[in-house]
Amino acid sequence: MKQFTEYLTNDEVIRVHEASLEVLEDVGVKVRHERAKEIFLKHGCIEKDDHLVKIPAKVVDEFMQMTIPTFTFRGRDPEFDKTIPQDSPVVITGSSAPNLIDPKTGEHRRATSEDIANIAFLINELPGIDVFSISTLADDAPQGQFSLSRFYPAAKNCKKPIRGNTPSISDLKMVLKLGEIIAGSKAAYEAQPFFTLHCCPIISPLTYDFDSTELIIYTTENNIPSYPTIVPNGGMASPLSLLGSLVQANAEFLSLTVLRMMIKPGAPHIYATLPVISDMRSGDYPPGAIETGILHAAHNQMARYYNLPAGGYIGLTGAHTCDAQSGYETGMSTMVGLLGGTDMFNMAGLLGALMEFDFGKLAIDSEISEMLKKTKSGFRFDEDELCIDVIKEVGPGGTFIDKMHTFENMKDAAFLPKIATREMRDTWKEKGSKDVRTRAMELINEILSLPNYSAISQEVDRQIKQTFPGIVKGDSVW
Amino acid sequence: MKQFTEYLTNDEVIRVHEASLEVLEDVGVKVRHERAKEIFLKHGCIEKDDHLVKIPAKVVDEFMQMTIPTFTFRGRDPEFDKTIPQDSPVVITGSSAPNLIDPKTGEHRRATSEDIANIAFLINELPGIDVFSISTLADDAPQGQFSLSRFYPAAKNCKKPIRGNTPSISDLKMVLKLGEIIAGSKAAYEAQPFFTLHCCPIISPLTYDFDSTELIIYTTENNIPSYPTIVPNGGMASPLSLLGSLVQANAEFLSLTVLRMMIKPGAPHIYATLPVISDMRSGDYPPGAIETGILHAAHNQMARYYNLPAGGYIGLTGAHTCDAQSGYETGMSTMVGLLGGTDMFNMAGLLGALMEFDFGKLAIDSEISEMLKKTKSGFRFDEDELCIDVIKEVGPGGTFIDKMHTFENMKDAAFLPKIATREMRDTWKEKGSKDVRTRAMELINEILSLPNYSAISQEVDRQIKQTFPGIVKGDSVW
Repeated sequence: MKQFTEYLTNDEVIRVHEASLEVLEDVGVKVRHERAKEIFLKHGCIEKDDHLVKIPAKVVDEFMQMTIPTFTFRGRDPEFDKTIPQDSPVVITGSSAPNLIDPKTGEHRRATSEDIANIAFLINELPGIDVFSISTLADDAPQGQFSLSRFYPAAKNCKKPIRGNTPSISDLKMVLKLGEIIAGSKAAYEAQPFFTLHCCPIISPLTYDFDSTELIIYTTENNIPSYPTIVPNGGMASPLSLLGSLVQANAEFLSLTVLRMMIKPGAPHIYATLPVISDMRSGDYPPGAIETGILHAAHNQMARYYNLPAGGYIGLTGAHTCDAQSGYETGMSTMVGLLGGTDMFNMAGLLGALMEFDFGKLAIDSEISEMLKKTKSGFRFDEDELCIDVIKEVGPGGTFIDKMHTFENMKDAAFLPKIATREMRDTWKEKGSKDVRTRAMELINEILSLPNYSAISQEVDRQIKQTFPGIVKGDSVW
Repeated sequence: MKQFTEYLTNDEVIRVHEASLEVLEDVGVKVRHERAKEIFLKHGCIEKDDHLVKIPAKVVDEFMQMTIPTFTFRGRDPEFDKTIPQDSPVVITGSSAPNLIDPKTGEHRRATSEDIANIAFLINELPGIDVFSISTLADDAPQGQFSLSRFYPAAKNCKKPIRGNTPSISDLKMVLKLGEIIAGSKAAYEAQPFFTLHCCPIISPLTYDFDSTELIIYTTENNIPSYPTIVPNGGMASPLSLLGSLVQANAEFLSLTVLRMMIKPGAPHIYATLPVISDMRSGDYPPGAIETGILHAAHNQMARYYNLPAGGYIGLTGAHTCDAQSGYETGMSTMVGLLGGTDMFNMAGLLGALMEFDFGKLAIDSEISEMLKKTKSGFRFDEDELCIDVIKEVGPGGTFIDKMHTFENMKDAAFLPKIATREMRDTWKEKGSKDVRTRAMELINEILSLPNYSAISQEVDRQIKQTFPGIVKGDSVW
């Protein structure tokens, strides 16, 4: 691709930046977290009313200079490391759904650590998924092991980078300890930190929470790979306007970026958002609406202005089954994002506006991801690819099917899906009239019936079980 | 939107143009249709072997200067006229499916003229559909009334522009006569010609057929709104390469454009394509593959170089039911097209690679179309829309829900779908756990149960029945 879609002119990008500066300088941000407030004040910000911090434009400009343009997700196996924007599009699972559609019974139920283990194993084998953001909560978590019950089954079975959140620093410390045991030592883990932490410290409009703010300060101070996401909700927590919501979210993003750079200049960072416009008829939250894709594309343009990789939650759906809506909502928003410059897509596996995980949806989204990757790679342009010689060789009325050029390009010219049907109706009927989710579940059954060679060694596992008594089993079971 | 996605640099666009010129000059086109060949030869082309016509670059360049940059689809009611690129995206139904999924029984059967009447009536009421390209064939057509049995139920019930094809000039003449009766006179019809004719005169690679070539010459000579579509099939009838297929299809497009301009300089024209890459594993024809979207975006760039509106068949699907595949295939390719500059989308209502019409798919695609239109319109950029004042008014931690600005933007800030669900799972379950096609069929049932005020008057209808004895009833029946 040679040129992204752009919703704003260069002047308009600058105007959005200026409007965001005006918001930060005139309105400010509410910072109840004392450490965060101190950091802001120590670096040139001003406290007006109680905990209301005004951020002068020159402070924003100064600290925005300290960002770096790339972010790397590391895996247990470095072969799966992904850096944005270089490896863009990087496709990640949607995360933290409390519920799940049981892959065998179809029952809608609470998710468990065993589900996470199965999903983790699956992620290794799905070519469209680059990073495993832990898809669900674990309803069977023992007391005091909320995060461990998610990160352990994830890391035990998945060699690709793992992303997740922890509700507290104490949980985070357990997760890091887990990482060190798996890596073999603290130094080995720090050389290849395969957990990336994530949180949403700002509650729109313009207010810092406590726990996530604590987490982002701690991870930034300690060089733990992490980034925050901005989550405006137009009509409720941000203006009911695409442009107004962009301005506010951009101001919120700037304040968080500046905070992180004040703590650690050059800390790897992402311009990450989940911009949603509320459905004002009902108050429903529609993250699958096309406005989320449109807003991402505009945020991507702002990210290019700041020279930062961009992305976030995109391609979600409000559908509760793998129906056409689930397909077009995931496919359309991600495509607007891709062509607008989204590098990172937190998109795969969820139904019901982030509330429900579905195995079938995950395999379908992996195929959607492969289509996005093909779309990004686009055209190879050289004299051979113009095919003038082949066209001359074949001539009017001839066929390309028996030409060497065709044979040589058979595998690479187009994406060849495993799940999507291309059969004529009669063939499709003979094979059982299966819809795409049925075919997706067949693929999943095939993968999860194989031996799990990605699991960690028994020796390391014994060490984990000794360190964390009562920890969940963490094994993939099919 | 301020900038389209571009797959090619300006130099690469020119190189594709030059490569196409080389193909036309060195390889040429096979023209078995004598009139067409004479027209080419009369205007500077050279016959080499038997019926092989070489088109010199200077001839192409000369006649490409004679195109005009717009194309208008006219409706029975001029209120529904659409001009591309001004009114882009203009969304059209997919056409000429032989089969249909019965809207009441779900049975897969041959389509009839009564189905066409029902679809026509429906088109008036679906806000996402701009032009009715007659969706199906009519299996009940009386002998000698093949085209009349399609155009009559279409025009009788639909006030929006109608697009279709006729297999012969004699069929075309009957259709035009029908138009004149409905319009009230030949002059009235010619002032508002609400039928647009379509055909595919080139069989790739580089070969003119007889019937469609005959039709495009006749319609061009007689100022009958019409345009041709180029339909390369990579791996079979064009190179198995995105770029090579682009070059050949562009050459084919140039030859047809030049032919039309030789006949009638300034004849309204569209850069229309249906570029497909074959699935080389099976030979299956996958018009829903993402490569079709990618190729459209590149053809759109060529169209901008030639200053012509662009579009064609896009957003089709290989799925046989309204499953997730049907949603993501239609949604993703159309989105690549939209952001790449597609003005006209022949996309709505079909399943099974153009072979099956489904009422539910039509209503779903209307909603997809509305999402495309929202995506195109993007951001309104002015000082008010930046919402700095509202953000100041609300302040950190406040809410936008009770603000006048929110109230004023409630209807327009975001697209509000009728079919897609945004409900929480419990509400959705209470209402019957309906998937999107079920909800689409409910909407269709609602529309088709209303009185059909779009039907033509009984007096005009009597005249039609007198002129064409034995003609099908042509009424919408639900």
